[in-house]
Amino acid sequence: MSSLLEQLIEALRVLPGVGAKSAQRMAYHLLERERAGGQRLAEVLAAAMERIGHCERCRDFSESPLCATCASPSRDAHLLCVVETPADRLAIEQATGYRGLYFVLQGRLSPLDGIGPRELGLDRLAARLAGGEVQELIVATNPTVEGEATAHYLAQLARQHGVRPSRPAHGVPLGGELEYVDRGTLSHAFGSRSEMV
Amino acid sequence: MSSLLEQLIEALRVLPGVGAKSAQRMAYHLLERERAGGQRLAEVLAAAMERIGHCERCRDFSESPLCATCASPSRDAHLLCVVETPADRLAIEQATGYRGLYFVLQGRLSPLDGIGPRELGLDRLAARLAGGEVQELIVATNPTVEGEATAHYLAQLARQHGVRPSRPAHGVPLGGELEYVDRGTLSHAFGSRSEMV
Repeated sequence: MSSLLEQLIEALRVLPGVGAKSAQRMAYHLLERERAGGQRLAEVLAAAMERIGHCERCRDFSESPLCATCASPSRDAHLLCVVETPADRLAIEQATGYRGLYFVLQGRLSPLDGIGPRELGLDRLAARLAGGEVQELIVATNPTVEGEATAHYLAQLARQHGVRPSRPAHGVPLGGELEYVDRGTLSHAFGSRSEMV
Repeated sequence: MSSLLEQLIEALRVLPGVGAKSAQRMAYHLLERERAGGQRLAEVLAAAMERIGHCERCRDFSESPLCATCASPSRDAHLLCVVETPADRLAIEQATGYRGLYFVLQGRLSPLDGIGPRELGLDRLAARLAGGEVQELIVATNPTVEGEATAHYLAQLARQHGVRPSRPAHGVPLGGELEYVDRGTLSHAFGSRSEMV
């Protein structure tokens, strides 16, 4: 038998980090205490899966052709920040006072997985850099091997179009203790030390 | 602004144990990699919230008036097991070879919260015990203060109708180490020790 309840438990496992036991707990919780919330989730989820696409300018998720950030006249179009994922974009937006625009790669260069410049929409990025409006390209890819390779590629692309590439600083995290910082970060932090004034 | 994406993240927080950060991760995961699974979840969820009610016989969740277990002719109607929640019922069903029927309280006696015999459907349970078919009432409420109070009440109810009440054994869990078993359980296990044969 595959009852509706069993189907619900199975369907919930599509969520990241949700196994059989959590899915079961979620299903019972919704049925016992959150029917209205569950109903609302079903509606919003259906709408989101169908209507959320990508902004044609920055490739971030958007329900309209142009996302709110790209459409905003108050953002500084001279600054363009490249990130790997929408989550990275959101983290920067929430943590910093950055007022420029974004470009979301939706991935990183990974030739072995068949992800090249085309898959990341770099032709569109190049066209934008050629447009002349962007003055600085902030390359905020992740400090992983693939992220660094992608950063190198992007820096070259920027220079080709006369745009200044930059990279957020790496180093010891604020509040971090030196003892627990990984070697690579510590080594980099020492190499990039700055004079105290 | 409350975009569809923000609405989705907010709606996901109805799930137990899902905070702002997990909800965000779930939303991005579905949008990036699981559109079909998300669509399917939306459909099943909507159907489940609308159509899953309670079995009119055992009060477990069921999409038909009578649940599959109650409707099954192969279950032993002389045995009736009372549990607090559908999750408890499922745990017993999956772990034991129990072939009798169930009655799901959907709660426990808790006068301070206004949950009395009526709210737990005990009038229906009494009518069933009076029916004469049930010979043993297995009281599998949780070993908490309220669960124990409920168990006492149920045992009395059973005796009133000439039905033998029983309770699953308490004691040291299999594979548990005595050192880590709580005092109450250990004390109970010592009091209920049985002769080795």
